[in-house]
Amino acid sequence: MSALPITLTDIEPGWVWLVGAGPGDPGLMTLHALSALRSADVIVYDALVSPDILAFAKEGAELVHAGKRGGKPSAAQDDITAALVNAAKANKRVLRLKGGDPFVFGRGGEEALVLVEEGIPFRLIPGVTAGVAAPAYAGIPVTHRSANQAVTFITGHSASGDVPGGVDWEAIAKTAPVLVIYMGIRHLPKIVERLRSGGRKTDEPAAAIAQATTRDQQVVRSTLGQLAEDAAAANIKAPALVIIGDVVDLSDHLNWVDPIRQSVLTAAPVGRHPLSGDDAPATKQ
Amino acid sequence: MSALPITLTDIEPGWVWLVGAGPGDPGLMTLHALSALRSADVIVYDALVSPDILAFAKEGAELVHAGKRGGKPSAAQDDITAALVNAAKANKRVLRLKGGDPFVFGRGGEEALVLVEEGIPFRLIPGVTAGVAAPAYAGIPVTHRSANQAVTFITGHSASGDVPGGVDWEAIAKTAPVLVIYMGIRHLPKIVERLRSGGRKTDEPAAAIAQATTRDQQVVRSTLGQLAEDAAAANIKAPALVIIGDVVDLSDHLNWVDPIRQSVLTAAPVGRHPLSGDDAPATKQ
Repeated sequence: MSALPITLTDIEPGWVWLVGAGPGDPGLMTLHALSALRSADVIVYDALVSPDILAFAKEGAELVHAGKRGGKPSAAQDDITAALVNAAKANKRVLRLKGGDPFVFGRGGEEALVLVEEGIPFRLIPGVTAGVAAPAYAGIPVTHRSANQAVTFITGHSASGDVPGGVDWEAIAKTAPVLVIYMGIRHLPKIVERLRSGGRKTDEPAAAIAQATTRDQQVVRSTLGQLAEDAAAANIKAPALVIIGDVVDLSDHLNWVDPIRQSVLTAAPVGRHPLSGDDAPATKQ
Repeated sequence: MSALPITLTDIEPGWVWLVGAGPGDPGLMTLHALSALRSADVIVYDALVSPDILAFAKEGAELVHAGKRGGKPSAAQDDITAALVNAAKANKRVLRLKGGDPFVFGRGGEEALVLVEEGIPFRLIPGVTAGVAAPAYAGIPVTHRSANQAVTFITGHSASGDVPGGVDWEAIAKTAPVLVIYMGIRHLPKIVERLRSGGRKTDEPAAAIAQATTRDQQVVRSTLGQLAEDAAAANIKAPALVIIGDVVDLSDHLNWVDPIRQSVLTAAPVGRHPLSGDDAPATKQ
């Protein structure tokens, strides 16, 4: 372990930074996310942002929960953007923190458009998206030269809570060698049925990953035909990521987390406790 | 600016960490990437890894260039993996650092498979991929609820240097509302032709982005039919990312970098100079 004294850019007063926190492991946070967390007066965060990450907030920061998880009601989008706008107009340093990346099914663009309308200055800071990171922590590269030259990221859960209506799953079945489905677990049987009628084989490798990159990470490897049942048997809960394609089999060789699970997922991958007291982040949980 | 004393996990002696450095902006590095850079004895890096990021390497670290850029010859893949294996067997702390994410067209899986064969312990650390970050720094969310429920990442450049042969561009044209093409500039006229024969309209919004998230970032907005010509006129050089889809128009509103370009892309977004001398990273450039 080594100390790292480094200088970061703070959020400016009156600004909103819209930032991806990454998939869960604090070590997958970006330096910009960390500096935003350390400088923010107000942090509006989603349920997908882990407590290990919020623990980096500065003492006295106002933490506002704005997410939803599973069936629980979400804060109305209008309330979230109003909170951002009001805090910025009060000259606070405002952080809108989202799990993963804000622009990969994160509605980051919608919130940013409200900031534009209100004349609030902002930055958009991407993060490590779960669609890449969850497979990587399961030993699955989303692309592999001999397997695929394209990967499709898709959401399995529309705003209305149903399978997305605008998606032609049968056509995608024909063109996407690797398919990564965000929020893929709830409607998985329906999605699998549509992929099958588009020609995907039931014995194609598939996996479901929940709580990705955290100490509670669950990985269920199966086949397209069997995954819904196997994931249910393993008690995989939404939100979970589903990945379908031959690259899933690379996990036979590349599963690196399980052999060192105690040192990677169980222990904090980055120390949450700084060396000196002055800059100690308050633990908010 | 605030100091951040934080404790990170070092690379273990005899291990290889295969790590994504992010798209260029050092602020988009993950904490794991930073700790890897700070602890590595040997760093084997691609051309796409920026000098600003390598500057975090510790004093005395051995830096091995293993990338290619444009037409220049690349180190043979066998030489790269041999360098990793030999250094690990010599009980060094070894970092294989790739631009963006190692598993999104980064060949990370191939290198990891060699480590498995050789019995070298390793970690796979994803990074912020250019396919998400370059658009975000151009004010373009790769997904937007009213525009698309899927995004396809694809490579425009195969191992042989031609347009990827295994890709049915005409079919993808029909199913991918937003298409992000890595290494998209060299074969753009040929790709556009195939997308058009698949039914894509020439007036569809499209953009090319080079040197994404760095102080030299170039963004050319155009249409599918006009992009190749406009990118050439703007002197956009490979490697560049191409994004096609209605989300490109959101840049009209969300282009946040240009108004604050001096403070975001020109200045170092994270300080490269630590507060105290002892831990000063050696500048290797």
